[in-house]
Amino acid sequence: MKRYDQVAQALAQRIEQGQYRVGDRLPSVRALCRELGVSVSTAQEAYRRLEASGLAEARPRSGYYVLPRPTPSVLPKVSRPAQRPLDVSQWDQVLELVARAPEEDRLLMLGRGIPDLAAASLRPLQSQLATLHRHVAAHGLNYDSLPGSLELRRQIVRLADKSGCLLHPDDVLITTGCQEALSLALRTLTEPGDVVAVDSPSFYGTMQILKAHKLKALEIPTDPRTGISLEALELALEQWPIKAIQVTPTCNNPLGYTMPEARKQALVALAQRFDVAIVEDDIYGDLAFDTPRPRTLKSFDDDGRVLLCSAFSKTLVPGLRVGWMAPGRYRDQALHMKYVSTGASATLPQLAVAEFVQHGHYERHLREMVRQYRRHRDIMIDWVLRYFPPGTGVSYPQGGFLLWLELPGAVDCVRLNEQLMGEGLHITPGSLFSASGKFRHCLRLNYAAAMTPAVEAGLRHVGEAVAALLEQEVPA
Amino acid sequence: MKRYDQVAQALAQRIEQGQYRVGDRLPSVRALCRELGVSVSTAQEAYRRLEASGLAEARPRSGYYVLPRPTPSVLPKVSRPAQRPLDVSQWDQVLELVARAPEEDRLLMLGRGIPDLAAASLRPLQSQLATLHRHVAAHGLNYDSLPGSLELRRQIVRLADKSGCLLHPDDVLITTGCQEALSLALRTLTEPGDVVAVDSPSFYGTMQILKAHKLKALEIPTDPRTGISLEALELALEQWPIKAIQVTPTCNNPLGYTMPEARKQALVALAQRFDVAIVEDDIYGDLAFDTPRPRTLKSFDDDGRVLLCSAFSKTLVPGLRVGWMAPGRYRDQALHMKYVSTGASATLPQLAVAEFVQHGHYERHLREMVRQYRRHRDIMIDWVLRYFPPGTGVSYPQGGFLLWLELPGAVDCVRLNEQLMGEGLHITPGSLFSASGKFRHCLRLNYAAAMTPAVEAGLRHVGEAVAALLEQEVPA
Ligand SMILES: Cc1ncc(COP(=O)(O)O)c(C=O)c1O
Ligand SMILES: Cc1ncc(COP(=O)(O)O)c(C=O)c1O
Repeated sequence: MKRYDQVAQALAQRIEQGQYRVGDRLPSVRALCRELGVSVSTAQEAYRRLEASGLAEARPRSGYYVLPRPTPSVLPKVSRPAQRPLDVSQWDQVLELVARAPEEDRLLMLGRGIPDLAAASLRPLQSQLATLHRHVAAHGLNYDSLPGSLELRRQIVRLADKSGCLLHPDDVLITTGCQEALSLALRTLTEPGDVVAVDSPSFYGTMQILKAHKLKALEIPTDPRTGISLEALELALEQWPIKAIQVTPTCNNPLGYTMPEARKQALVALAQRFDVAIVEDDIYGDLAFDTPRPRTLKSFDDDGRVLLCSAFSKTLVPGLRVGWMAPGRYRDQALHMKYVSTGASATLPQLAVAEFVQHGHYERHLREMVRQYRRHRDIMIDWVLRYFPPGTGVSYPQGGFLLWLELPGAVDCVRLNEQLMGEGLHITPGSLFSASGKFRHCLRLNYAAAMTPAVEAGLRHVGEAVAALLEQEVPA
Repeated sequence: MKRYDQVAQALAQRIEQGQYRVGDRLPSVRALCRELGVSVSTAQEAYRRLEASGLAEARPRSGYYVLPRPTPSVLPKVSRPAQRPLDVSQWDQVLELVARAPEEDRLLMLGRGIPDLAAASLRPLQSQLATLHRHVAAHGLNYDSLPGSLELRRQIVRLADKSGCLLHPDDVLITTGCQEALSLALRTLTEPGDVVAVDSPSFYGTMQILKAHKLKALEIPTDPRTGISLEALELALEQWPIKAIQVTPTCNNPLGYTMPEARKQALVALAQRFDVAIVEDDIYGDLAFDTPRPRTLKSFDDDGRVLLCSAFSKTLVPGLRVGWMAPGRYRDQALHMKYVSTGASATLPQLAVAEFVQHGHYERHLREMVRQYRRHRDIMIDWVLRYFPPGTGVSYPQGGFLLWLELPGAVDCVRLNEQLMGEGLHITPGSLFSASGKFRHCLRLNYAAAMTPAVEAGLRHVGEAVAALLEQEVPA
């Protein structure tokens, strides 16, 4: 056995025995040389072997990290939604989720779409806000201009550059969260009765916009690795009078995929061919694990038909409600819709976010969060494989902090969640992500915050509850 | 001549000579006795004479104040809008108004709907906000519950009590400004093509909601002292399929009237008879000059058909975007509409406003502002009578900080404003307040902030510009 193979084997053993756990950084090459008395090239080769065996992965300028054990993990299946436009339901369950007051919540929330708010790299935001509120002159309390703070729009233009988008501050409207951006976009494009094509599963906030405005959802089959099926979408565009396509193509909520660039480009081309607008939700896009971050659909849009919607709710904090949109050729209508919906957005949160970005805190925070969320993804997948019944489908997120599970049997996750809530736990049932309540045997988890023993124990408990339900279900 | 008549005459002379100006407090009874060596009863009787002559008015627990000179002031005429539902226009002019960034503005803004943001009694709000942003735990950065902070809703319930409304915190939804409340209310009640009856003139923000959602405005004749004509409204209800009545019955924007209680009650009864919902905008209601403040329509609503909309934008500051609504029997639909429109409202501004109210700062601030705005009203009416051409109609606001002028001739206030803006001044043209651009010969002024010599000079300049335009217009 070659020396580097021996070293690789020793490392593999330590991982096996739990000395290094999933998501941990392995010793640096130099540290390994020192410890085992081997040459740099031997240590490097050992790591390459370890990587080839799927036990670890290299991260640029950072080192090697333990990957989830190569237990055969199953991806969720490609979705097969109904092939016709549907009215959206499921409001009661969404309401239960969003009506909760977080500070009163004594539940371990394993499912909500909330970033880690305890991150140290967020602190400058809080002190900037405090300072602004104390010291800014009266205009900080006054109405802002309708499109929003110019300084913030400038910073957003700078950030959009990294997703391949060339924008001008006049292309950008500040909104009250991404939810308002999505709502303005869809209300700008549609009238009651119109059909909107959506990926499936799809963020429930958008689905509920369709419901509130009497639009019909046409759910398109979606691949958990590559996103909305262009083939199925093309068929649908031929068959139905679709007014808009709504997708979350980068770090998708809930599936975590990022559509490959070529498919993004093809999606924009398809929309052009059928002369349909696209509402692109990019709220998780800056949390992609790859650098540079993936391009947006908007970056391929040469005739202004993509309405890009985003917010700082997932990358920074949701409670400030600072979002934005780049509505392309629909700017004038979107601006009118913005005025009538909420007037100008709140003034000082915009100034605080602008400062935070301008001083480099945003990019620093993103680097920290991406590192943390990627590590947490690996840990949580490992826990799921460990604690959930075999055959459970698990997404493999390319960014963000959400994990999607498909249970291997007809477990009803709405009832599962009711049971869990009695036990102090909360997961998000998959049925919220469908117009008609599909994905009842799926659930969403959140790995944003610290992966504590309490979270591990909670997840284990969920896995056991699932196993118990599956057993009851065994056919006679 | 009786001694008290001599004293009254002396005071009248001082007023005439400008020693006491409109809005000033006159010497107290005790001070007058000391100064002129008269008895308390003589001084009291002198003041009664002065009051009877219309030169001064008594304000409870405060003293006597100089009234505008009894130059015959003319009220604006009862409006005579078109007798059929119209599509709303005028967006370009509203946009020009709301797209301005206040901090960059070098204009003397004589027309915008902005309260005095320099008031000392606002300061606790700023320091509460600063403290909250620095010290509140992570939940302050998180999503709030969808209906909004329970503490704030409790305080709102307490305040609503003063307008005769018995509410429960569950009846209240926090919104992103009053604009969102109005938008949610109208979207909850209507579908494109529906007809909404409105007072006339009517706040342009609401008119633009109708435009954006393809609703038709049926403008109802409105009396500048008593509000929407119930007789005309009744005829309209018989003739048209009206889905909702939208009014601002207390401290109306722009006319300043408060509907008498009996008429408010009759309006609710009328809505009941025709089974129509009422969207009541009460954003200026707490700034009524009378105590206790007037009752809301909502206080007469016994079957939940009034959707009461308000905000802290005029009573405190607009830039926080804290509003609320009490949607009555439409609560569930309004809550859904709220969710899809902006999700939960921003968290910390709600907590800050709740604290501000809870600690009594709100009521203290209102007392200061009511006193200030009432004094400013008198001063500004005095200036208008002095500097505008005879025959100019002037509203007589019962609260708030907005004055409405009707010019005695076909002056086009849109063009007037363009001219003024070149000269560093801004007024709000009346045409913004009509679906179809009526009231072009009317304009709105703001008397919230300090009535400085610069404001007086600006207003004088506007008056002269109006006079010049009227002269050009003289028939051949
Ligand atoms: C995909 C997606 N879009 C939009 C939103 C709404 O974002 P915001 O909180 O900024 O309104 C969310 C939040 O959960 C989301 O997950
Ligand atoms: C009568 C009236 N209603 C509603 C609004 C909008 O208020 P907010 O700024 O709270 O959205 C205004 C503001 O100008 C107003 O004058």
